[in-house]
Amino acid sequence: MCFVRLLAAPTESRIPSRQTPSRGCIVDAIHTEFSLIEWIRRQARGSTCVDTGIGDDAAVLRLPEGAQTLVTVDMLLEGTHFQMPPATGGEVGRKLLAVNLSDIAAMAGRPLAAFVSVGLPRDAHREFVEELHTGILELARRYDVALAGGDTNVWDGPLSVSLTLVGETTGRGAVTRNGAQVGDWVMVTGSFGGSLRGGHLAFEPRVAEAMALNEHFQLHSMIDVSDGLAADLHHVLDESRVGAVIRAENVPISEAAQQWVDERSALQHALGDGEDFELLFTLSPAEGARLLTAPPFTTPVARIGEIVAERTCLLRSVDGVLVALPRLGWEHGA
Amino acid sequence: MCFVRLLAAPTESRIPSRQTPSRGCIVDAIHTEFSLIEWIRRQARGSTCVDTGIGDDAAVLRLPEGAQTLVTVDMLLEGTHFQMPPATGGEVGRKLLAVNLSDIAAMAGRPLAAFVSVGLPRDAHREFVEELHTGILELARRYDVALAGGDTNVWDGPLSVSLTLVGETTGRGAVTRNGAQVGDWVMVTGSFGGSLRGGHLAFEPRVAEAMALNEHFQLHSMIDVSDGLAADLHHVLDESRVGAVIRAENVPISEAAQQWVDERSALQHALGDGEDFELLFTLSPAEGARLLTAPPFTTPVARIGEIVAERTCLLRSVDGVLVALPRLGWEHGA
Repeated sequence: MCFVRLLAAPTESRIPSRQTPSRGCIVDAIHTEFSLIEWIRRQARGSTCVDTGIGDDAAVLRLPEGAQTLVTVDMLLEGTHFQMPPATGGEVGRKLLAVNLSDIAAMAGRPLAAFVSVGLPRDAHREFVEELHTGILELARRYDVALAGGDTNVWDGPLSVSLTLVGETTGRGAVTRNGAQVGDWVMVTGSFGGSLRGGHLAFEPRVAEAMALNEHFQLHSMIDVSDGLAADLHHVLDESRVGAVIRAENVPISEAAQQWVDERSALQHALGDGEDFELLFTLSPAEGARLLTAPPFTTPVARIGEIVAERTCLLRSVDGVLVALPRLGWEHGA
Repeated sequence: MCFVRLLAAPTESRIPSRQTPSRGCIVDAIHTEFSLIEWIRRQARGSTCVDTGIGDDAAVLRLPEGAQTLVTVDMLLEGTHFQMPPATGGEVGRKLLAVNLSDIAAMAGRPLAAFVSVGLPRDAHREFVEELHTGILELARRYDVALAGGDTNVWDGPLSVSLTLVGETTGRGAVTRNGAQVGDWVMVTGSFGGSLRGGHLAFEPRVAEAMALNEHFQLHSMIDVSDGLAADLHHVLDESRVGAVIRAENVPISEAAQQWVDERSALQHALGDGEDFELLFTLSPAEGARLLTAPPFTTPVARIGEIVAERTCLLRSVDGVLVALPRLGWEHGA
């Protein structure tokens, strides 16, 4: 593990970049006293769980006994997961940590330490790298996550970033996708659809909500909605070997989806858009009713349907008609 | 954490790729029953430490009590860390795990579970992805490492891969870079230089050697030689706030470096080439002598110098002349 691995490149490409640094570019920064790794080390506040952080071959973490360790990794690629512009370096860094926080939340875990690998375009400026890390670090501080290691590289490709987040289980342990039981209520936090209007960069990962749910209620299964409400519901159904009936009028539709004008309905956006990063979970009707009566947080929760034995996923429209809810969202006329 | 995140792309780029899959390309594979994630799940043998592996939002690891957790991440980028050809997908996958194994070895740790993120060129074929993962998995099996999660994406850039390796401390705990003491012997495993002749793809990470050293000897500091013998020695000296004198005639030079014909000497290659992935460590003269007398493995070990109080790094030539050994390797005439 090495925050700046320019020197280790085994091809001839490192030689020209060393001999002909262009002013202001990241290659310069490697050769200044104020080196990038030192800047990152200074910014990355330690955490009680990190015995050895940035600057050695591997981080040494002292994780709490009793809890299990959670590990998740997500990669964001320029042109696929974000476009710059409009996204800024800070927004990309924030999103990179946020999508991983959402994965730890989906297991009802507490995030602890992050590890970032970066492939920087050769013309990236020092300021951009600082923006990217500032975006990561501001969110990391709010969630008490240590930036404990990484690997920063320069190449001829577009921006490629990957973050690994280590956490610990909380409450009644990890909540997986495969525990949904027949009769369970299907519930969600927040609202869905229209994430391209900015939500996919600015969403708040449901870390606190997931831990509170796992502390106070007996959750049977949980997932974060990244691929889309319908697609992620299918993941839970596949892993749990059950089916579901979803009631159209109970799906919370975001304001962005309600205002979206195209050939798809607001409900279609809510079911298919993806990148909402809300929680989808199942629990017994008794536990679900208890949650609706006394939610342990102010984020909205809604009951959108129930788990059934027959392994199909159905959508019940307002007039009571049942249609198949396909994996990729509700297509018009399906 | 999601092994195939094509559906989550928030840009319009995913729409065309869904509507116009080209025959044989990876985008096809997502839509076939024999899906990539299922193939990877089947190939990725479990491990006793993995309670929940590929297929949920995060992996759940049950790490041994008493030991500390080690985490390292390394990224390999096409055109910077490898060229294809001559490197194959299998060689890139193998190297991706091997460089991280080498980092865990440098802490004298035992590797446990790997997490891989991949950015695939849009025209990558299914066979290539299988080759890449087979390269990772063959080495993983030999070192009893579980492939416990990942994130596979398609984009318009070159191949970008990142691997996070989780391990545990062994023996007397993690061996860091910052413990070198005045009077210590500086020792190395194996030989150095000429890694571009294939060594950087085929090297054997010194995992077993490092654990044996840490079990039988009191190591003061250790690092793996990835940036180059001189550069990595400087890392140890910087972190330990000491200096060193290295004896030129005692530096083990690889056969590849001895046969290299250019303007640099074999010794210069050995000191500067990088990507040898041997161990560089320091320990007391008594412990060092004991190691030379009864090494616990067959891999060669050599004493190449000693730690001194004055914070300079010097090279003593065969005729006794002392010259500065610069950070980037021994430049001719320096």
